[in-house]
Amino acid sequence: MGKYWSKTTESITPYVCGEQPKDKKYIKLNTNESPYAPSPKVLNAIKSAADEDIRLYPDPNCDRLRKTISSYYGLRSDQVFVGNGSDEVLAMSFLAFFNGDEAIVFPDVSYSFYPVYAGLYGIKYRLAKLNEDFSIPVEEFLKSNGGVVFPNPNAPTGRCMDTEKIREILKNNRDRVVIIDEAYVDFGGNSVVGLIKDYPNLLVVQTLSKSRSLAGLRVGFALGQEELIEGLNRIKNSFNSYTVNRVSNAAAVAAMEDEKYFEECVGKIVSTRETTVRRLEKLGFKVIPSKSNFIFITHPLFAARELFAKLREKGVLVRYFDKDRIDNYMRVTIGSDNDMNVFIEKVKEIIGKGV
Amino acid sequence: MGKYWSKTTESITPYVCGEQPKDKKYIKLNTNESPYAPSPKVLNAIKSAADEDIRLYPDPNCDRLRKTISSYYGLRSDQVFVGNGSDEVLAMSFLAFFNGDEAIVFPDVSYSFYPVYAGLYGIKYRLAKLNEDFSIPVEEFLKSNGGVVFPNPNAPTGRCMDTEKIREILKNNRDRVVIIDEAYVDFGGNSVVGLIKDYPNLLVVQTLSKSRSLAGLRVGFALGQEELIEGLNRIKNSFNSYTVNRVSNAAAVAAMEDEKYFEECVGKIVSTRETTVRRLEKLGFKVIPSKSNFIFITHPLFAARELFAKLREKGVLVRYFDKDRIDNYMRVTIGSDNDMNVFIEKVKEIIGKGV
Repeated sequence: MGKYWSKTTESITPYVCGEQPKDKKYIKLNTNESPYAPSPKVLNAIKSAADEDIRLYPDPNCDRLRKTISSYYGLRSDQVFVGNGSDEVLAMSFLAFFNGDEAIVFPDVSYSFYPVYAGLYGIKYRLAKLNEDFSIPVEEFLKSNGGVVFPNPNAPTGRCMDTEKIREILKNNRDRVVIIDEAYVDFGGNSVVGLIKDYPNLLVVQTLSKSRSLAGLRVGFALGQEELIEGLNRIKNSFNSYTVNRVSNAAAVAAMEDEKYFEECVGKIVSTRETTVRRLEKLGFKVIPSKSNFIFITHPLFAARELFAKLREKGVLVRYFDKDRIDNYMRVTIGSDNDMNVFIEKVKEIIGKGV
Repeated sequence: MGKYWSKTTESITPYVCGEQPKDKKYIKLNTNESPYAPSPKVLNAIKSAADEDIRLYPDPNCDRLRKTISSYYGLRSDQVFVGNGSDEVLAMSFLAFFNGDEAIVFPDVSYSFYPVYAGLYGIKYRLAKLNEDFSIPVEEFLKSNGGVVFPNPNAPTGRCMDTEKIREILKNNRDRVVIIDEAYVDFGGNSVVGLIKDYPNLLVVQTLSKSRSLAGLRVGFALGQEELIEGLNRIKNSFNSYTVNRVSNAAAVAAMEDEKYFEECVGKIVSTRETTVRRLEKLGFKVIPSKSNFIFITHPLFAARELFAKLREKGVLVRYFDKDRIDNYMRVTIGSDNDMNVFIEKVKEIIGKGV
């Protein structure tokens, strides 16, 4: 508590991101980063951007990047908003579309930044309890007061909701904005970008941090009809005119353009995920069905908290949430085949099943 | 107005930044960018950062950059906060330290983003009217209700306030935060970083966009005692865990370290400024004394609005603010000697005094 802090600063509970330790080299399966380098074309684009124009502000509207993204998805440029990572895009979306006194709805087990954004802007919320199998209960999202937000696939579970169920939510919230956070959709999920033309209340948020290996550069975007994008621009232009810098702009364009490289990386991650799931199931783990680049796992005989701590000692970082209902689960990012071999080997050492 | 907009989105008046036109090549003297490329060491740092680690999130705490900045200023790392441009740092500072119902004070002629931040977060404010010579009236800033913010040198006037006067403001606002926005201080202004040790209510904000030629990469920072920095971290970590990307971190470290290059660039800009002032005065302009990388000028015989428009036609962009008290002034960024030769030549053509 601080004498000089505003009431907001005093009252918020900030988000705690997955650790980025510097003490030694870990196999990092804790923050859903890609195990693969960005496309060589991305690295070239960064190097090419390292010229004297760095002295000049970037394009505040990111016209070229928005054009690239809109072409990719068959939308118009004014249906695309870009930001400094999808976290920033989500934060601005909360402020742009939700009001303090009308409770929004999101799942009780979900991206733990949502309640933080709500706290930051004083927005009331209601938690919808996931079903026992960790699927999202559609009925809880019909007729929200203030709006809806959830990830699809959900995090940290990896479970998807069918497009038709999302359509039902959109239809039943015609006066409120429904944000579908598709941070992990590229790994086999069903995107609802195709519904944008029919639903002016749909905002889809995506990121280049995961499937396009750009976590280090921070580029995220939102897709929606013009009114929503204009609302986001109003907020952005009341906060920071230039949120995406020259290098990130250039790199993101190259990343969106190199579709072949993107598909190769995603294909490898999906394949490694499926292999890893089978191996873990053989070791007695229960694995929630995942369409993302992570899996959410639990073991009937070994406490997740201890597994997490012992894996860390052995140089493998995964994510553990000390939170009701999921405190016996670990979220494990899908790394390279080699990363996952080491992970499985360490798990076997810990649970004592030999090799 | 939008059906889906929040009350905030509806009510705000976003900031309009200086134009970044793409229709043709202009001499850009409208957004206070440096005419000089970043240090070659910065460009190398960007290229070196273009490696496979781009797939990994950046350090959320920017430890290395904070250490570099803190050493430079003789502070500790936990007295430094960095962000995605000083605009973001200022926006977060408003939310971190100011409350809605207690009016903050800033000058009526000042950085036009301040009222926008206040609008975004619903913070009341009082405008302190500049003196006739555009100096800031100290007495208006003693005993504020909610806090104080102003640039030193002020923008768009370029005028400085003495350190002793700022000390007086700090002493008379012991329970409120005083933000001194030193975006332009490196061009001859008096920094108040030295007062931080004595005043826990002082936050100094600076940027690498101007004097270090990094506008295209967006790095700004705040300096203050630990409580203020912790407050900013609470807000940042409730908004976006990773605001400064890997490339910007690396480039900013290199820029802070290459002090020789920095001093050369700043020296050239100050020298060009003084030459330009003399030449404009000879042409009958009144120039407000400037300690920044821009000058604020007016002519008794020619309307600034027209001069601005005609300069634009002739390929020279300057900044014009259609605002009470300053609507007969132009703000002109100091470019290279060559830029300013063209500017003066075009001015002469317009006001018809020949060469």
